[in-house]
Amino acid sequence: MTAREPNGRPPEAPAGGVRANVQAMRGYVPGEQLNDPDIVKLNTNENPYPPSPRVFDAVRSALTADGLRKYPQPLGDAFRRAAGRVLGVDPDGILIGNGSDDILTILTRAFVPEGGRVASPTPSYTLYRSLAEIQGAEFETVRFTAAWALPDPWPVAGADLTFLPNPNSPSGTALNPAELDAFVASAGGPVVLDEAYADFCDWNGLAVAARHPRAVVTRSFSKAYSLAGLRIGYAVARPELVHELLKVKDSYNCDVLSLAAATAAIEDEDYFRGVRAKIVATRERLHLALGGLGFAVTPSHANFLWCRRADRPVKPLYEELKRRKILVRYMNYDGYDGLRITVGTDVEIDLLLAELAGLL
Amino acid sequence: MTAREPNGRPPEAPAGGVRANVQAMRGYVPGEQLNDPDIVKLNTNENPYPPSPRVFDAVRSALTADGLRKYPQPLGDAFRRAAGRVLGVDPDGILIGNGSDDILTILTRAFVPEGGRVASPTPSYTLYRSLAEIQGAEFETVRFTAAWALPDPWPVAGADLTFLPNPNSPSGTALNPAELDAFVASAGGPVVLDEAYADFCDWNGLAVAARHPRAVVTRSFSKAYSLAGLRIGYAVARPELVHELLKVKDSYNCDVLSLAAATAAIEDEDYFRGVRAKIVATRERLHLALGGLGFAVTPSHANFLWCRRADRPVKPLYEELKRRKILVRYMNYDGYDGLRITVGTDVEIDLLLAELAGLL
Repeated sequence: MTAREPNGRPPEAPAGGVRANVQAMRGYVPGEQLNDPDIVKLNTNENPYPPSPRVFDAVRSALTADGLRKYPQPLGDAFRRAAGRVLGVDPDGILIGNGSDDILTILTRAFVPEGGRVASPTPSYTLYRSLAEIQGAEFETVRFTAAWALPDPWPVAGADLTFLPNPNSPSGTALNPAELDAFVASAGGPVVLDEAYADFCDWNGLAVAARHPRAVVTRSFSKAYSLAGLRIGYAVARPELVHELLKVKDSYNCDVLSLAAATAAIEDEDYFRGVRAKIVATRERLHLALGGLGFAVTPSHANFLWCRRADRPVKPLYEELKRRKILVRYMNYDGYDGLRITVGTDVEIDLLLAELAGLL
Repeated sequence: MTAREPNGRPPEAPAGGVRANVQAMRGYVPGEQLNDPDIVKLNTNENPYPPSPRVFDAVRSALTADGLRKYPQPLGDAFRRAAGRVLGVDPDGILIGNGSDDILTILTRAFVPEGGRVASPTPSYTLYRSLAEIQGAEFETVRFTAAWALPDPWPVAGADLTFLPNPNSPSGTALNPAELDAFVASAGGPVVLDEAYADFCDWNGLAVAARHPRAVVTRSFSKAYSLAGLRIGYAVARPELVHELLKVKDSYNCDVLSLAAATAAIEDEDYFRGVRAKIVATRERLHLALGGLGFAVTPSHANFLWCRRADRPVKPLYEELKRRKILVRYMNYDGYDGLRITVGTDVEIDLLLAELAGLL
């Protein structure tokens, strides 16, 4: 399976009235979510560790008849105050989202007209193309260099919206702040620094974005905070830009339990640092071990590793591992393919390495 | 406060790059959500009764480390099977949403191009206009008759998307199935029957929609099921249309706890019928009592009543009630105004009636 299968075609019986750009698109295909509890799931970059114990307490406290039957606070102000304190940013510059996917959707609708242009590097997160297609916009993409750098200046200046995942997926590589600054400046328009994985990197783009009025940083609770099931993300931007984005978001886009969970999670900084340290340590161990097994592994600033081989195709390895109940992500970008392996627990990684050693 | 204040203008410092249609719009203004637990809240049509006890059990069961840290099932299949069984519809014809607002957003993005046309009657739910504005589309509206009927044929034929809330807000009135059939046929394009309040009505539009390939019914758990805080709604349409709509929704638009709650709620049909019967009984009592106090009250098929007076303005009544910690909704549609009062518990309604009797 590719992350996004090519040659999408409209279904046989087109649904009357649906826009042609929607009918023509294939639709984003998320990673497999198998129901088998025995599977070692290393394919969608979930966190192998539980969320902070405070999250469970917060959800239980919010689980009241009044909490459920009343609408949530539309802006998530309690969360915004907590996140603002932890990040050192103005709470009015924080926009809450039903996962960072919701934030990316809001940004696309706010910035991109039909017939407009969306830009992003490749290989990268394929959702950006889908968002452009839904909006009826063109999608332009620029290849990363072999060293996962970007041409400077960025060649697609003036797009209606430019997405840069940093760290990037599938590579796990990250532009440093000086490179980010140059990128945002040369993009010449609104830029989204998608920081879904920035919690695993030693730097981030908040200070860069603060210098650029059209830059937005997006974040997720699905990775470092172990809350993929609850759907919470946020954006950080200038308050006057958030003021505009609020018009585009659904009034009550985040629910009362998710907001309580996210607030507790971001406030438990010690727990966060502990989980992060474990994942980073396992990542470095996995990197060395995969290298020892003959993989070319890209140094990663995220919670996954991008692995390729010169000596044999990797898709059969993905398939063999799946048969052995270990699910990694096989990704294929127009023939450039590899395995993206989520950093699991040490036990999970030992299982993976043992199976791989047997297969190779 | 009006439901949607007129003469919206862009903020003083426009946010660079945001589409002009977004900058020019005012944005939908939801009903007030006051933090005061002592307030009698009769302004946003929440349910005064708790959700089914099974909802709490289901959320507690789903509140596990694995449930939180993993992505939810993207289509909400367990919920779709339960809802399909209860409603007697094909689960493949059900689309899950982060509240029915999310469904209305998905439908607008799927059907309405920039420069397209959105139609709806008025006075009605003002969100439809906001959705059209975000999309960069025109919004055309047709007045209900004095008896809350619609002209037949519907005069805005061939809009890219036509919204009909049935029952309607603020009136609580509902077209019957024969009228719905005529409306959908004469709209001549995709039609959304917004049934957020249909659980309080003696009929609904599911059979009507089934006869029309471009008709969609939308539903909410925020009203009859007391789950406004959890954000769950759904659409029912032909499976081939849902297939297209799935491309537009965010991959993981509903979280694991909300899906568990909604599944438990829709399966507890006895509890649902009990709550519904209590609200309908209180609604009829409130209708009579408000009539006795001199209000012109529109007969309602929803969980609220629309009340006007010939002898005095009603906005001061809203303000006086708010001072006395009773919050109702004052709505003003270009000078046609009234109070929309949610049907609360009998105790809440007695408090309201006592205060009103004192004020009048």
